[in-house]
Amino acid sequence: MRVEVVAVGTELLLGQIVDSNSSWIGEQLALAGLDSYFQTKVGDNLGRIVEVIELALARSDAVICTGGLGPTQDDLTREAIAAVMGVSLEESEEAAERIISMFAGRGRGMPMNNLRQAMKPVGAEFIAEQPGTAPGLICPLSRPDPLTGEPRSKVIYAVPGVPWEMQEMVSGTVLADLQRRAGLTSVIASRTLRTWGESESRLAELLAERMDDLDRRAALGEAAATIAFLASGVEGLKVRLTAKASSEAEAAAVLAAEEEAVRAILGPTVFGVDDDTMESAVLDLLRRRGMTLGVGESLTGGMVGSRICDVPGASDVFRGSVVSYASEVKFDLLGVSEGPVVSEEAAREMALGARRVLRADVGIAATGVAGPDRQEGHRPGTVFLAVAIGSAGSAGVGDADLVDSVALTLPGRRRQIREYSVISLLALLRRHLLPAT
Amino acid sequence: MRVEVVAVGTELLLGQIVDSNSSWIGEQLALAGLDSYFQTKVGDNLGRIVEVIELALARSDAVICTGGLGPTQDDLTREAIAAVMGVSLEESEEAAERIISMFAGRGRGMPMNNLRQAMKPVGAEFIAEQPGTAPGLICPLSRPDPLTGEPRSKVIYAVPGVPWEMQEMVSGTVLADLQRRAGLTSVIASRTLRTWGESESRLAELLAERMDDLDRRAALGEAAATIAFLASGVEGLKVRLTAKASSEAEAAAVLAAEEEAVRAILGPTVFGVDDDTMESAVLDLLRRRGMTLGVGESLTGGMVGSRICDVPGASDVFRGSVVSYASEVKFDLLGVSEGPVVSEEAAREMALGARRVLRADVGIAATGVAGPDRQEGHRPGTVFLAVAIGSAGSAGVGDADLVDSVALTLPGRRRQIREYSVISLLALLRRHLLPAT
Repeated sequence: MRVEVVAVGTELLLGQIVDSNSSWIGEQLALAGLDSYFQTKVGDNLGRIVEVIELALARSDAVICTGGLGPTQDDLTREAIAAVMGVSLEESEEAAERIISMFAGRGRGMPMNNLRQAMKPVGAEFIAEQPGTAPGLICPLSRPDPLTGEPRSKVIYAVPGVPWEMQEMVSGTVLADLQRRAGLTSVIASRTLRTWGESESRLAELLAERMDDLDRRAALGEAAATIAFLASGVEGLKVRLTAKASSEAEAAAVLAAEEEAVRAILGPTVFGVDDDTMESAVLDLLRRRGMTLGVGESLTGGMVGSRICDVPGASDVFRGSVVSYASEVKFDLLGVSEGPVVSEEAAREMALGARRVLRADVGIAATGVAGPDRQEGHRPGTVFLAVAIGSAGSAGVGDADLVDSVALTLPGRRRQIREYSVISLLALLRRHLLPAT
Repeated sequence: MRVEVVAVGTELLLGQIVDSNSSWIGEQLALAGLDSYFQTKVGDNLGRIVEVIELALARSDAVICTGGLGPTQDDLTREAIAAVMGVSLEESEEAAERIISMFAGRGRGMPMNNLRQAMKPVGAEFIAEQPGTAPGLICPLSRPDPLTGEPRSKVIYAVPGVPWEMQEMVSGTVLADLQRRAGLTSVIASRTLRTWGESESRLAELLAERMDDLDRRAALGEAAATIAFLASGVEGLKVRLTAKASSEAEAAAVLAAEEEAVRAILGPTVFGVDDDTMESAVLDLLRRRGMTLGVGESLTGGMVGSRICDVPGASDVFRGSVVSYASEVKFDLLGVSEGPVVSEEAAREMALGARRVLRADVGIAATGVAGPDRQEGHRPGTVFLAVAIGSAGSAGVGDADLVDSVALTLPGRRRQIREYSVISLLALLRRHLLPAT
């Protein structure tokens, strides 16, 4: 079954907003086993929206429209779908009441315009989820088969352009509805293993035998997972496991077995699953050991601390960070010995200093040259990382039990060098926190 | 003249990469006075790329293809354009030599595949700029006019998917070539004023009279600028000035006069021009006064420092940041009085503490609740900001000359609250650094 995505909004064409919705939907479609060959952006123009939807229906079986469901005269997706279906719009009393009560619940007066959102093409249904004021739509219709002329069932979905509203509707209703229409009675489930530190070719080499084995089993009709690789920039590579089975329980069992098999092969290269990040993985490991963390940052400028604070609940582990951008701050506040600050020794002293002054069990630090200019004779990309680990509850008092450091030469420009330094530092700490095997 | 954008790459459909290239090109086209009504993403499939380009040529006068110019068998944009033109591909000796010498210059062996990049459709020209190994293409062709049947000139451009390579070619060659073909002999130039702190409706109100006046002058045939607003999320609103004139000098003069007029109306709401950011604006103001900066961060977790360090050359102003996530770090390291830490008083003490311990002339600080949970009884979004300004060269010694603070209630989730806090804090400092008027 072929599904197209149409993103509606002049602001998308003008580049005022980057259309990340289509990308997200494309990923979900692929995970659900649905093909998607075209994605189109079109402005807030009725004729052109109709033209694009008609074309998509001619090429594909289903169309997901995102955007253009707001309350203003510029929001034309409802009108365009009605035109494509050859029907008029009708007001849903139920939807109108829901919108009115949403505004009342927020203690705000409702502009009359908002009742436009209660309109739907005759024959369309609302999507059950409605996180915002805009209801989503399921609009069945038919088009003649190009060969036989027989009517073929097609469907248009309309979801809002606001990302979280769109995501809730697509995850909650649209994907399952598409799978049902596609006659995909089998359940498709997937899990993503996050890896860091190995290249795609190395992962492919390590997993080659396993992947061959899975192919063989699938050819014999056994319920076997498939494995695919997805790049995610400096954040490493994702290994996506997908299972197709006759029930959710069976799919879950296939995924669980496959995750175990892949983890046995890749070992600690796998740092997490699905929404895990390197910082959430590190925080979990520290929390499990009852340890607190302090950070000393130079070229990263606060990015290590900021990423850690992105994780809700970081406060039971994360004490803070000393961003010692100026050399004197390294000397005065972190107790680094006066001398070169772009050095492995400075990184180690920064980690020890962060552990001590932030009274943390573990200190980590990064120093180096982000560029564009050289510093202390070193090229941009020259980076030193260090970790200083004491026992749980030591709170920075006494010596660290272990100090480790690494020197890196990173490629790219200022921003990339800084981002790569952050993830590398977190990965270095993670390695030291893993149980010895 | 209508221009369409076609982004080529299966990874775009699968959501592994978000197609920000189309958005960037869309913005440039709008600035250049060219219409763009459709943007399409298509995978690495020859038949479908040809189909999409044919459709775009039927709807528009020009097509910009981005992506699919790499050296592998998956890179099919060259083949697709040749098919659309009805010609074969030929190797350009000059291009081949250039690619070979690029690899030689980097001291790397060249995979034979890379010579695919020296191929071009017969009748196409290479784009002069070539920042990477992939040359860009200008491919003129004609299509019959749908009404008269007379041949009409059209053009396809092919540029790489790597953003900076694409941008260099589009800015350097494609836009001017399009304007020439469109018969736009006039020069179009634009400038973006960055503003922060006023809503779009307020800006529109303030500039209404000026915009009416510009419309009147344009109607009389005078060289007048146009004004448009672009939202940029928590980063404020952009006011875009565009001038159409008969020469570059005239366009520059119109823009300069318009910038002066708009600045006179909007005053300090304008914090910068074009690529300026709030952090670069703040660093410039501090640098001009010979002042250094220290930061105290709680809920922002290092994001303030990190943004400041994004600006090359920050080191002559920025001393560092103390990320005091745990309350004890606020007490011990920044000298905040023991007690509630989600308070305006704590923010002021943090700013003073950051100024003192980082030995900076100016200290700024943010504390508050990012959520999802309440803290000290305060809801997520409760944020306190403070600045403490001493004289240039005071280096944190002695009292600050001025301490100011504000209490905010910010909407949104964790990430948005933190981002809004950062920009608000930088904006607060900026206001205090502006010369008194």
